[in-house]
This record gives sequence, structure tokens and C-alpha cells, in this order.
Amino acid sequence: VRSWWGWGNRDSVVDPAGAARLVGPYLPLDGEITPIPGVPELRPPRVTPPSGDIWSDDPWQRAAHTHGKAFRDVVRNLRGELANPPDLVCFPRGEADVVQILEWAYQSGVAVVPFGGGTSVVGGVELRDPDQTFVSLDLTGMDTILEVDEVSLAMRSQAGILGPSIQDGLRPKGLALRHFPQSFEFSTLGGWIATRSGGHFATGPTHIDDFIESLRVITPVGISESLRVPASGAGPSPDRLFLGSEGALGIITEAWVRVQRAPAFRASASVRFEDLGHSVLATREVAQSGLMPSNCRLLDPLEAMLAAGVTDGAAVLLLAFESADHPVEVALERAVEICRGHGGIRLEQRAQASWRDSFLKAPYLRDALARLGVVIETFETACTWSAFPTLHEAVLAAVNPAIVTCRFTHVYPDGPAPYFTVYATARRGAEIETWDELKARASEALLANGGTITHHHAVGRDHVPWYLRQTPQPLRQMLRAAKAAIDPRHLLNPGVLGID
Amino acid sequence: VRSWWGWGNRDSVVDPAGAARLVGPYLPLDGEITPIPGVPELRPPRVTPPSGDIWSDDPWQRAAHTHGKAFRDVVRNLRGELANPPDLVCFPRGEADVVQILEWAYQSGVAVVPFGGGTSVVGGVELRDPDQTFVSLDLTGMDTILEVDEVSLAMRSQAGILGPSIQDGLRPKGLALRHFPQSFEFSTLGGWIATRSGGHFATGPTHIDDFIESLRVITPVGISESLRVPASGAGPSPDRLFLGSEGALGIITEAWVRVQRAPAFRASASVRFEDLGHSVLATREVAQSGLMPSNCRLLDPLEAMLAAGVTDGAAVLLLAFESADHPVEVALERAVEICRGHGGIRLEQRAQASWRDSFLKAPYLRDALARLGVVIETFETACTWSAFPTLHEAVLAAVNPAIVTCRFTHVYPDGPAPYFTVYATARRGAEIETWDELKARASEALLANGGTITHHHAVGRDHVPWYLRQTPQPLRQMLRAAKAAIDPRHLLNPGVLGID
Repeated sequence: VRSWWGWGNRDSVVDPAGAARLVGPYLPLDGEITPIPGVPELRPPRVTPPSGDIWSDDPWQRAAHTHGKAFRDVVRNLRGELANPPDLVCFPRGEADVVQILEWAYQSGVAVVPFGGGTSVVGGVELRDPDQTFVSLDLTGMDTILEVDEVSLAMRSQAGILGPSIQDGLRPKGLALRHFPQSFEFSTLGGWIATRSGGHFATGPTHIDDFIESLRVITPVGISESLRVPASGAGPSPDRLFLGSEGALGIITEAWVRVQRAPAFRASASVRFEDLGHSVLATREVAQSGLMPSNCRLLDPLEAMLAAGVTDGAAVLLLAFESADHPVEVALERAVEICRGHGGIRLEQRAQASWRDSFLKAPYLRDALARLGVVIETFETACTWSAFPTLHEAVLAAVNPAIVTCRFTHVYPDGPAPYFTVYATARRGAEIETWDELKARASEALLANGGTITHHHAVGRDHVPWYLRQTPQPLRQMLRAAKAAIDPRHLLNPGVLGID
Repeated sequence: VRSWWGWGNRDSVVDPAGAARLVGPYLPLDGEITPIPGVPELRPPRVTPPSGDIWSDDPWQRAAHTHGKAFRDVVRNLRGELANPPDLVCFPRGEADVVQILEWAYQSGVAVVPFGGGTSVVGGVELRDPDQTFVSLDLTGMDTILEVDEVSLAMRSQAGILGPSIQDGLRPKGLALRHFPQSFEFSTLGGWIATRSGGHFATGPTHIDDFIESLRVITPVGISESLRVPASGAGPSPDRLFLGSEGALGIITEAWVRVQRAPAFRASASVRFEDLGHSVLATREVAQSGLMPSNCRLLDPLEAMLAAGVTDGAAVLLLAFESADHPVEVALERAVEICRGHGGIRLEQRAQASWRDSFLKAPYLRDALARLGVVIETFETACTWSAFPTLHEAVLAAVNPAIVTCRFTHVYPDGPAPYFTVYATARRGAEIETWDELKARASEALLANGGTITHHHAVGRDHVPWYLRQTPQPLRQMLRAAKAAIDPRHLLNPGVLGID
């Protein structure tokens, strides 16, 4: 059973007492534990749905669809602050339902906020205009794999499918999508596409963008279905305009997605470095080697301690290779050799398993810490290798004196995607203000030092000021015009991307 | 010295008599050879340029900038049919010139057609409205590499630079772009970006799209410069809207482009197959293996004979691997082993060198054949592996009784990019009509069988009818609105992409 207020499943909730023992040595705690909240009284629905059983005004559903799953969302839920819940939640069972919902919304002036799996950490599923009536559109009932092309290695699926259901559907055919954002268990294919999620592979094609063959999108002016081809040079890419559109340009209902043969050969190693600087040099050389490891995640010393149990102050690089076709030991050995050239030493004990485990459990731990009054949140970026050292220092200075860890989630030949986790204390009741200030300072540091405001968390509403600054004016004009052309009443997730 | 009427350099022109000996056995020739034409009388310029020495009304320049380099362009040039030459040609020396040209054009109602290197084969540089005054914008004077980031492996270059100048500029640093469209010697970086050119690598990142870090584009509403990052998830990709915009959204003046360390390890092999069917199966398995050969070009039996001198009716797969970091023999051996599993036999004699040679010389041969009255032209597409066999048969039927060869220029895990060359005879004076009819039939066959109208030749004006059909209506509305927002007078290469 899902949690309405926090991450994932209710059964997986982490005991705050245990979390307190973990962080107590580093952060002062006041000993209070915020209780798990009940669903608070909500503003009554302001719209009457048309007939049909796809609509819900159930308070639990409306509460669960009010916020995403950022730290600030969890804190507001813990406090019972659900100021702007959706008037209704709707659960379409097929494309015809989606078309009808959009038609009704356009007739009624009701906004439509696509919810995906609701794991947004950037205010992507939360309408902020209190005067605008809106429905939350939950596509998780549209979760069928419709077709698998085993010759061309691609699947056509409805967009509401969750990560594990994709796995289950492809496994009997020996296939896999190999796309594992941290939200994998609770986020949808359509959500990944709308937000340009970052996936499993640390190198090479990794954003969901790279796996899309074609999209089917319902817009107020009609259905947009792109040609299913492996590549095309015909005009600006049709799919790349919808990738990252975050519900502002239409409702993604289906996609053709490239899949892989399940890996038959694997090899992995963990390499320790005395300091972050040398580990970055090694990681860069591996990223530029063309070896294309499937995992190439660099953990700074604090991250290595918290996430991989490496407690001697070393930075750790997690390397893994996989293939369905050929052995990968030679590639791994070459990558380790590159690391050795920068002072890296291969660890006997493998940090990978514990890293993966803590990766998936991290959001539950985050919720427990939030209940202890700890400010804990993440932000991420991408920058060139040249820009990284300065950017890294600037971020550390910006969030000082908060504790901050850094890892590389993805690495490209031209730069890493650094991912930061911040731990801070705040006055009870001022957790959100404290975080918002840290986040603003960090965001300024990213933009001032050549980073993007997001590598794979999307823009939503929280990132709009920085997104608009990093987006050139003519491009903003083009996006606004494109949006107005197909959503003239601005009812599709108004507010995201700042293009309304 | 460049040719105004045909491909490339005047000195490299192929003797039609030699070409006649080559194709005589297969195609009936009338023995006439159209002479190399002089610059014909042109319609006088209808506009007066502002002062400054970047403008030219020289007839040779205007003639050379009237058409691209398609078969139908060469034939029209041979006939002296230059109905709609640009009123002026301008040669900006820097971005300030480009801004001034656009300002003047907007004040004067004169259209601007970016010429790139002028190698368009789809009518991309040729304005077709006889009543619209226009200038041809030639950026080849803006050809400087401005910055090389040897840490992040990227270069910032002006957009008018030609392929060989990029090579020359990067070679001293041990770097290379490794992007070799057939037009490499005579096309520009900006042209590659505007038309989404397909490059050297047969697998993995190969379209120029994949190499772009950021773009600088002059538009009528201002300069658009995207953030230079290795990857971003912030909204729809800013660069992907300009990639493939073919001059309709602005003038690309600069780009940050990923470069590579020059390869130090190479291995290659040619594999013969008794029939095309088995060679396609083998090529697919190699494309799906993750081995990522740099070359993986499949030649059908006729193409193998014409381009690689394999005259025994076999299909030939050209395989090559390259790396700056590690030996690639193991990867090659595995690829050859995959081929063996499908009946492939490794050839002792390497077909690669002769293939490359004929690849770069092909357009000169094309011009010689055009002078003999032969209809010779190419078209290309991409489709899934599932779709290929039917598409291939349909194309052969559509152009029957013309001679047609097929090769794969690029292969993806989910499908190939087939490239067709057509040889046909026509009544003298009816070459263009004959080709246009063949092309229309072939294009219908592509679209009816899951192919895109172009994988890397772009849309231009010739592909507009099919491009609009393969592009969903909401997307067309978005592109039209985006164009109108930044080019309200529709003076940027009006007609391309069919979005005016």
C-alpha cells in the first residue's frame, strides 16, 4: 500500500529512531519525532465531474495527488499543509478517456496536471495558482505493454506503466529496458519521458531521450504520433520537443522504446582514491576512453562513507560493465588500469551491492530524517570537466555550513553529472524556508559556474527562475509560441517550465 | 578552384569518356557529352546592397549560389537554367556582419538563404518564389576554431568552417571531430548542424546532433546561445530545435562541438555473404551486439561491384573498429564471428580503401554521368529491422526498371539507414522529369513502408510534401508557431520544411 504523504510503500517506512542513531553523531537533533500524519481536511472540490467512474473526489486520493515527493512536499504533508489540492483525480483506462478528459477540461476551463507516478521533486505535479480549478491526471491504470518487436528490439507500451511492470513484461522474452532512475519502482514511463529522466547507464545513451523511437501524445488540437524509426534527419526532432515538456504540451499516452537483450556477461570493481581530485581525473579518463562502463559512479569521501560503508576517507569509483554479447572482463581491467594510473587501488570488498541498496532506500531514510526535523535534500547538475572543480568548490561554499556530499551519477566524455545531497538542521517549523534558502544559494552557484539547473530532476515549478535564465530568449519565445499554438487556454500543467 | 555548376573542385572533374566506358555495358548512351557550361546571363539583381564590402553581385558568385548540388541542380546548371538566382551574395566576416545583414533584410523585406557549403541535395539553398527578393548568405569566411577545451574534449568554432579545416585545426592537438559526411570537403559545420548531417561512425552517436554541446544562433529577435553542458534535463532540448531547422529559425554562427582523441588503434575486415538476406541478419546482430564498430557498412551485390570491386555477386559488409585508448582486435574478431554465424566469409583483400575512395569521388562521377545524359541520383532513409525487407522490395519495385543499388550507411540496434543509388536513362531534355518521377515513386514507397523521408540529407524543399505527411499535425502547428514567433516576416530561408 502506497503512502500518501511520503515515499513509496507504507510498509517500507524507515524508523526515525534508527535514523536518529545514524545521523545523531553529525547533526544535533531535538529528540522529537513528527508522527505519521492522517489525511487532513481538504478544500472541497470546486468542480463537478462529468459522469463516468474514472473520476475520484476521495480525500485520500486528492491528498496523495496534491504534492510530489520532494523534501518540501514531505514536510508540508507532515504538517498537514495541503493548501491547493486537486479538485478531482481522474484515472483514465485508455486513450479515449484521456481525449474525453481534455475535451471536458477545455470546455470547463479546468486545468489538467499529469501526475505520472507522482515522484516529482521539483513541484512538477503541483498547481500553484489557488484560483485555477484543476484535476490531477493519474495514468497508472494505463500500464500495458502493447507490442514487443523482438527483431528490432523495441517495445510499444502505454505510458502509465511503472518500472517494475516493464521489467516483468520483458523478462520472459529475455529483454530489459535497463532504465533505473532512483524512482524506478514508483514512476512511470510517461513521467520519465515528460521529465527526461536519467537512467541506469552511467555512460553512453542514458537519458530516456536516447531510448525513444516514437511518441503518442494527446494535445488539445489533436493526437501527435511520430514516425517510428531508429533515426531521422527530417527537420527538428519531433520527439525532442515533447521530451522534457513536463505535461505542458500534451499527455503522453504511448511510446515505442528501445530495449536490450538482458545482460549475460558482467564484471565490476570498486576503486579507492586518496583524494577527490585524483578520482575525478581517473573518472574523466575512463569516461573518455570509449570503454562505456554501465556503471561509473564516483562517490566523494562522505558519500562513500554514507552510501558504501567506506569509512577511511577515501573517494570510491564504482565500475561495472555488462553485455548480452561478449565478455567484459578485458574492458573492466583496462578501466581499472586507467584508475591505477591516477593512484587508484582496487578494493577487495565490493561496494556495489550496498551502494545500490542504499540508493533505492534513500528516499525512505529521507522521510525518517524529515520527521526528526533534519533538512535533507538533493540537487544535481551537469557541467564540463573543465568547469567541475570550480563549480564543486562554489557549491560547497554556497551551502556552508550544511553538510554536503557529492557523487557523479552519470559521466560523459565532456563532463560529469554531479549529484549533491545536503544535510542541515533547522528551527522546527522553518525547515522549508531553510531548504529554500540553501537551494537558492546552490542554484546560483550552479548557474554562475557553468552548470545546468538540472541534469535529470526536471524543471517543474521550483527550477523555473533558473531555467528561464539559462534558456536563451529566442528559445523561450519559440517554446511559448509552440505551447500557445496547441494549448491556447493554457490548461496543460500551467506553470511548469515558466512558458505560460 | 571550385566549380560553379558541379561538384567540388574544377580540377577533379571526371572525364565523361571514362565514365561512359564504366556504365556503357549497363546503360544505353547516345554518345553525346554535354559541355561544361559557362556562366549564363542572369536576371539582374533587384536589390541594392547597403554599403560595405561583404556584398557581391558578381555573376559567377550568384550563379554558384543559385542551386545546391543535387542531380537536378547539376542538370539545370548544365542547361544554363538559372531561373531564380540570388539577387546578391554576402560574405560576412563575423557575427556583427550577420546581425547587420539580418537587420537590413528585415528592414528591406529581403529573404536570407543560408548557403552553408552549398552541397544541399534537397533544394535547401534555393528559394523558389520568383517574386521574393533574396540574398544567399555564405559563411565560409567565418571559419575559425575559436577555442579548444582539451580537458573536456570540445571545440568552439565558427560555423562556416569546412571539414578539412576542422581536421587541420585539431590535428596538432592530437584531436579529431571524426565526422565525415560525403560532402565533408565542401560542407560547413553550420550546414551539418542545420541539416542534421550523418557522420563517420556507423554505430553509436553519429548524427552531428550527438556532438553538439551548445549553439549560437542569430535570429531576427536576438541571439540565442545555449548553455554549454555535456547533458541537461532542463526542458525540451534547446539545441534540438535548431538542429534540423535548415536556416528557417536563424543563422548558426558558432557551436561548441565534442571532439575525440585521434584513434591510435584500428582494425578492419570485409566479410562476403552469398545473399543480401543473410548479410542483413549478420549486420543486425553486429548492430545489436554493443560492439560499436566505427564502420559497419553493408553493400548489396551491385553496390559491392561498383564501389568495392567485388564482382562475384556477393554482398559485402565492411567492418572497422577504432579507439584512442585500447586495442580493438578482440572486438573485430567477435564481429567477424557473428558474421560467420550467418554464413559470412572474411575476405583476404580489403575492400575498405577502394570503398572510401569511391565514396568521396562519387559526386564527380555523378556529374560526368549527368553530362552523358544518364539519370543518377541517391536517396536514403532509416527504418526498423522488421520493416527493412518489405521496404527494400517496395523501393526496388517503385523505381523499376531503373538500376538501383543499396547500402547501409549507418546501423542502429533497432534498424538500418539504407542508402539507394539509382541509375536510369532518360530522353535528353527530360532528365529532371524522369528523376522527379522516380523520386516521387521511391518516396511513396519509403513512407508506405515505415521509412523516414530522410536520414541525413535533410528536408529542404524537395522533401516537403513527404516530410509534412510524416510529421504529426500538432507538431507542425508548434513548429509553425515557433517560426512565426522569431521570424514574423518569414524571411529566413522561406519554403524549407514547409513551415511558412
